[in-house]
Amino acid sequence: QSSVTVYGRVDLSVGSIKELGTGSETKMFNGGNGGLTTPRLGFRGVEDLGGGLKAHFKLEQRIDAETGALQSPSFKGESSMGLMGGFGKLTLGRTYSVYDDARALSNSNSVFDSAFTPSGNGVFKSGGDYSSRFNNQMRYDMPNMGGVYGGLSYAFEQNAGADDTMTAVLVGYKNGPMNFALGHQNEKGKSDKYLQLAAAYDLGVAKLSAGYNTRSGTAAKGDDDELSLGVDVPVGAINLSAGFATSKTKVGGFTSSKASGFGLGATYTLSKRSKLYAGYRTHEVEDGAGVKTADTRLFAMGVRHDF
Amino acid sequence: QSSVTVYGRVDLSVGSIKELGTGSETKMFNGGNGGLTTPRLGFRGVEDLGGGLKAHFKLEQRIDAETGALQSPSFKGESSMGLMGGFGKLTLGRTYSVYDDARALSNSNSVFDSAFTPSGNGVFKSGGDYSSRFNNQMRYDMPNMGGVYGGLSYAFEQNAGADDTMTAVLVGYKNGPMNFALGHQNEKGKSDKYLQLAAAYDLGVAKLSAGYNTRSGTAAKGDDDELSLGVDVPVGAINLSAGFATSKTKVGGFTSSKASGFGLGATYTLSKRSKLYAGYRTHEVEDGAGVKTADTRLFAMGVRHDF
Amino acid sequence: QSSVTVYGRVDLSVGSIKELGTGSETKMFNGGNGGLTTPRLGFRGVEDLGGGLKAHFKLEQRIDAETGALQSPSFKGESSMGLMGGFGKLTLGRTYSVYDDARALSNSNSVFDSAFTPSGNGVFKSGGDYSSRFNNQMRYDMPNMGGVYGGLSYAFEQNAGADDTMTAVLVGYKNGPMNFALGHQNEKGKSDKYLQLAAAYDLGVAKLSAGYNTRSGTAAKGDDDELSLGVDVPVGAINLSAGFATSKTKVGGFTSSKASGFGLGATYTLSKRSKLYAGYRTHEVEDGAGVKTADTRLFAMGVRHDF
Repeated sequence: QSSVTVYGRVDLSVGSIKELGTGSETKMFNGGNGGLTTPRLGFRGVEDLGGGLKAHFKLEQRIDAETGALQSPSFKGESSMGLMGGFGKLTLGRTYSVYDDARALSNSNSVFDSAFTPSGNGVFKSGGDYSSRFNNQMRYDMPNMGGVYGGLSYAFEQNAGADDTMTAVLVGYKNGPMNFALGHQNEKGKSDKYLQLAAAYDLGVAKLSAGYNTRSGTAAKGDDDELSLGVDVPVGAINLSAGFATSKTKVGGFTSSKASGFGLGATYTLSKRSKLYAGYRTHEVEDGAGVKTADTRLFAMGVRHDF
Repeated sequence: QSSVTVYGRVDLSVGSIKELGTGSETKMFNGGNGGLTTPRLGFRGVEDLGGGLKAHFKLEQRIDAETGALQSPSFKGESSMGLMGGFGKLTLGRTYSVYDDARALSNSNSVFDSAFTPSGNGVFKSGGDYSSRFNNQMRYDMPNMGGVYGGLSYAFEQNAGADDTMTAVLVGYKNGPMNFALGHQNEKGKSDKYLQLAAAYDLGVAKLSAGYNTRSGTAAKGDDDELSLGVDVPVGAINLSAGFATSKTKVGGFTSSKASGFGLGATYTLSKRSKLYAGYRTHEVEDGAGVKTADTRLFAMGVRHDF
Repeated sequence: QSSVTVYGRVDLSVGSIKELGTGSETKMFNGGNGGLTTPRLGFRGVEDLGGGLKAHFKLEQRIDAETGALQSPSFKGESSMGLMGGFGKLTLGRTYSVYDDARALSNSNSVFDSAFTPSGNGVFKSGGDYSSRFNNQMRYDMPNMGGVYGGLSYAFEQNAGADDTMTAVLVGYKNGPMNFALGHQNEKGKSDKYLQLAAAYDLGVAKLSAGYNTRSGTAAKGDDDELSLGVDVPVGAINLSAGFATSKTKVGGFTSSKASGFGLGATYTLSKRSKLYAGYRTHEVEDGAGVKTADTRLFAMGVRHDF
């Protein structure tokens, strides 16, 4: 009967980070920087309009909980609304592109898709990584058809007068323990196109995920070839996970940078809503001459609580 | 029993806007810029203190939902509290002036008092329009006496040390299908005084609203004479509306600008809380020499959802 | 069953403030500047994890309700989470230091620990006062043991690369009408150490509170000796209160500033959640040569409403 649900998550950790050129620093981390996920506060709802049609909305903030600061924009996580029914789901506003679904699937079992996951935290950034959310977006998710799912995203210009639209397409197939997806995203504002092939499989004793990703940029920015792997092993209330990622950037046929990293993590379930965790991540980047340009080691322990 | 209600509205549309000197732009609009109303998130409550006395409060944000940004200040919509009872209603803080009630009445049936309504969107701005909300305000609404209603607003200085107080007064009469109001607002910070005569009438098959507004400014800023008209025609779940507005600014006896515009709109009710809509607005401004200084055409279709 | 409670407070007053060198100004105050407390909006919850263990979180904003502006950072009041059980309570994030508990106790009956309380509003600031909340904090509260309570606070560096950590310790004893506490806080970022001895006693017809506070700074900043006193007298729905505070700063053995002030206040309870109030505060500061450097008089009447 209530038309709005207030929900959120607080995730804080304590640990150390060591980066090339700076000493090791012991500090408190916002979960998104050194734990599982970024703290958030949200407001969402679904209204049944009858005849199978529903209206939905979501307003979700991202919080640096260690300082009490709100990340910008205020509703960075999501600011969207739309309709859903037999035709699928239409979403307007600031939301994730459909391509992000393929990325999320490729990391779904790689150290909990967290700050300990190497792909999105350094390795895939060496050549310039994709944007997960877009303003001014129309997103369409088709209804699931015998396991086949998919969607389209189009973002109108992000800055007035600029040709910085985004187009993305996703197609996937999920059946029992397996889930495959192929995603493409064209970000005109950066002149980068991304292609992601992702897969996950639940063996029961372990869950696997893998992804192959490419970026095609301008002649000056070159192209990326990227791979990510992950495994989750549940042991009672404990979940162990490991992840690996590697990336190579070529400009004009020459390798301009190489990056790789791995992560390890464990969570301990206190309840459906609360977890303790610890994790480790390391990644290195070197330029075409083999000189290290990044070398990061992160270790942290923390608590995550959903409400 | 709960002491706070979380509520809000998301309104997004897609359309095009063409302005003098720039080409047509197709984009996503926040409802307040190209739809019915500005998205919002609010927190409000009323406490019964016994003996007919009640305490009330409201904290309401305004959101650019297409980008997830919060409009400034954070509680732009309202940040107020007060007491109400047999004596009427007293409100302290940031809230609408009583004069705004007369303005709202004058546009109540003019394209849904929305971004498609010509008066407040360009036409009345040609000579400088009033401010609807004030900080540091004390507002008193008298109890309804046989249809007669009214109120007073006083805003303490908005900027320390400046004589920029605001005083406003409203008196109205509502009886069955008719509603009349007269409002006056003196904004010392801008040296502008406003007078608004407003009326609305519900014919059953159609609802009408009209307003006559004047601004009296300094010799340099001159005076405005302004008129607005509107009609709403309900047809089942559909509501059709049209609005017209015109404005003339005189400085030193000479016409320095003339503006006029009209709007058309339709809403389709999906539920009490959800609507589809489409609208069109055009307005033009020309200076004393007859040269166009503004020429805007807006068309958009969207969805509004209340929660 | 609900996992989150939305709560808050709005407090607004109207009054006048006169400060040295400027005339008297009549204005609307945010409660924290000229009333009882700063308006706030918060989200909090406690989850029972079983076995006596609980998870807790709190996200609390501070609002300038007279203008609708949010104080910075967004969750200035609190942004924290943690666990509690038989071992006590562990809190991570932005929260009050344990030293603040001793300060709060010393002012607990001194004009409602409000903007009318002289100690924290001018008198104790003459030599530089403590910070009540810290980011990146780990706070531990021991379980109450036969009336003995206490805790520890440690804040990791506030600014990257700076040695501006904070350490605080609190020990207290509460038994029936009496409550004593001793707190120490070392703020490395300011090179100031604080020591607070606080006591409160409930006589039934009146409640008393008192505090003795010292600041030990660098040779250049010198040291402070400070005293605060307060009394609350309940008379039916009315509560009368008075407070006094004095401070002396010595640099290199010489008195560099002397400050003193007092406050008077009354509240009238409309309900558990709503109060009317009026208050007066004055404080003066003079430098080592006996020249007044501050002379403030505040009078205001207002309303406070909790939700």
